[in-house]
Amino acid sequence: MASPVGAPRLGSAPRAFRPGVPALDLFPTALWGRTVSRVHSRASTALLDGGDPAGHASLREAIATHVSAARGVHCVPAQVFITGGTQQAIDEVLRLAVRPGDSVWIEDPGYAGARRAVLSARAKPVPVPVDSEGLDVAVGITRAPRARAAVVVPSHQYPLGSTLSLARRMALLQWAKRSRAVIIEDDYDSEFRHRGRPLTALQGLDDWGCVVYVGTFSKSMFPGLRLGFLIAPPAWVDVFAAARSTASAPASSLEQAALAAFLSEGHFARHLRRMRVAYRERGEALLDALRADCAGALTPRPCDTGMQACAALAAPWSDVRVRDEAARLGVEVAALSDYFLGRRRESGLVFGFGCVRPEAFRAGTRLLARALDAARPP
Amino acid sequence: MASPVGAPRLGSAPRAFRPGVPALDLFPTALWGRTVSRVHSRASTALLDGGDPAGHASLREAIATHVSAARGVHCVPAQVFITGGTQQAIDEVLRLAVRPGDSVWIEDPGYAGARRAVLSARAKPVPVPVDSEGLDVAVGITRAPRARAAVVVPSHQYPLGSTLSLARRMALLQWAKRSRAVIIEDDYDSEFRHRGRPLTALQGLDDWGCVVYVGTFSKSMFPGLRLGFLIAPPAWVDVFAAARSTASAPASSLEQAALAAFLSEGHFARHLRRMRVAYRERGEALLDALRADCAGALTPRPCDTGMQACAALAAPWSDVRVRDEAARLGVEVAALSDYFLGRRRESGLVFGFGCVRPEAFRAGTRLLARALDAARPP
Repeated sequence: MASPVGAPRLGSAPRAFRPGVPALDLFPTALWGRTVSRVHSRASTALLDGGDPAGHASLREAIATHVSAARGVHCVPAQVFITGGTQQAIDEVLRLAVRPGDSVWIEDPGYAGARRAVLSARAKPVPVPVDSEGLDVAVGITRAPRARAAVVVPSHQYPLGSTLSLARRMALLQWAKRSRAVIIEDDYDSEFRHRGRPLTALQGLDDWGCVVYVGTFSKSMFPGLRLGFLIAPPAWVDVFAAARSTASAPASSLEQAALAAFLSEGHFARHLRRMRVAYRERGEALLDALRADCAGALTPRPCDTGMQACAALAAPWSDVRVRDEAARLGVEVAALSDYFLGRRRESGLVFGFGCVRPEAFRAGTRLLARALDAARPP
Repeated sequence: MASPVGAPRLGSAPRAFRPGVPALDLFPTALWGRTVSRVHSRASTALLDGGDPAGHASLREAIATHVSAARGVHCVPAQVFITGGTQQAIDEVLRLAVRPGDSVWIEDPGYAGARRAVLSARAKPVPVPVDSEGLDVAVGITRAPRARAAVVVPSHQYPLGSTLSLARRMALLQWAKRSRAVIIEDDYDSEFRHRGRPLTALQGLDDWGCVVYVGTFSKSMFPGLRLGFLIAPPAWVDVFAAARSTASAPASSLEQAALAAFLSEGHFARHLRRMRVAYRERGEALLDALRADCAGALTPRPCDTGMQACAALAAPWSDVRVRDEAARLGVEVAALSDYFLGRRRESGLVFGFGCVRPEAFRAGTRLLARALDAARPP
């Protein structure tokens, strides 16, 4: 997931509470560096040449194994296509699945990149509201029953944080089956459930082959890696393979090979386990700090997954104004109203806590309290 | 430049005479591996986070310095935008510069990726013939005077190998100025002039800011790296920067930083010098081998740049059939007629000699002679 609307990011190091940045301070840089070095030192001519436009075979295999075990995804390696990240994956699926003028459901509020991808495919984005059960499928069916595709984040909606309920999952799949639509499941940070086992992916419930699963290593490894993947339904594999056959390799061949080794040697699974613990601690630290410093103004939504949290902002404030005041004081937050495509139904702030060390939360929320004071209407 | 039409490439190691593959046997893998390791071991949080969507600042600076000295390109680092390779660069420029339905000149015969990029921008590709002086600008003006863009390879046309003459360069620039069109200069293998100094880039002659220069490290480093760049005219920098501002970083941040170090420490310039000598030797070895084994059938065109050569095929043969027979015997060549978009005016074979060790040429041409026998019409 790229930078959210309104959050500055160019050139500067991540600060509290920039959304979308993982715990880079805990990334095992030295171990990753050794893995990359080893792959380089053994690089064959075929590897330097870049290889398969669908992606490096060993990485496709390692991903298929990982998502089957960790996310309940049903797939074989031939269904896995390596991408340069989530945005590129959604672009590619829409380019193949929709025609200019087709309608595509997108979540509202939601990831700005989904809307950009729909527009870039010259299709028509249809905002479908999200509530505490996730995407409101019934409203989608009312607004655009014949949409050709839906871009959804079932496991941990961005930015609200809700999980798509089982009833809605089944309704969404039924709709897609009936209308032969494609569901693009963006599963960008689902592996970071703070407690218990992560929910199974929507793809695992799909008996009809209408879900394309999209994953990324930007959150689970680091954003600078620019590696992700999509998992095509079996009937679509030939279409994706044909589209790729005239393209260049999707990403650096050496980094693909290094990531495959990192996965298959178990380093990735170990890193995920450590991250889950860290995000639980950091999520709790954020809630504690908000309670201590901003209790009257901000009411956090429940947060049990990932590295972002959303808090409702009390009526007198404008979230855009608070965001701007906070930025002036050196604190980054995103304004919830910037994520709405249709009518702005809620006001709130979106916090990234992934990149913040536990001891730094109070410094951020104290500054935020000052920003709230400054932004309070007379 | 991606795989040419008709050449098999998926999964297999490069073989004689696959076009588009550099001398990977001579790439300083260990030195590159050490550079990458050093960058990893010092990686900052900001570097892991991915950084500027325009590309890593140190790489943009190193590229600006390099192309100014080596290619006579006039630019400052802010004009340099890092890309994932040539195809992505052409796609991006066309997306910003043309509207659906606009006409775009492309070289005929030419790089299939240029046509794909034009179609993907929903514009209309207008094939403009190429002869020994390069693109026939007068024909282009007759066919589509109001085209919005032209995609050209002035330094070393692919696949014919011609260089755009000075008179045609001036005519092309005059046309672009008059009609406010954009010239996309694909300079993919210009640095490998076998003798003497490479020709200055077309961009260096452009006083009006109508040329976007596109370069790649796929040939000068290795294809698996997936790093290239575009250089926007000064007046276009804000447009490109705005388009990038909502995107993710264009490629792996660590590999960008490593490449910047490789350039600024002088390794890249040294590698280029060694490659020029190797390509001169390999180009001569190819001509000698063709003269020895295929003299009656194939007449090579002059070849003083790069890692590809084209040879005219005598009348009785079909180049497609020879290509297929050769593939059966284990030799890869491309058929010239596959590169034509309009009428197929010439028959010939396209050879990549970059990836072939000098001692292996005769083995390839002897098999090719057998393929010519097998493909000879009765």
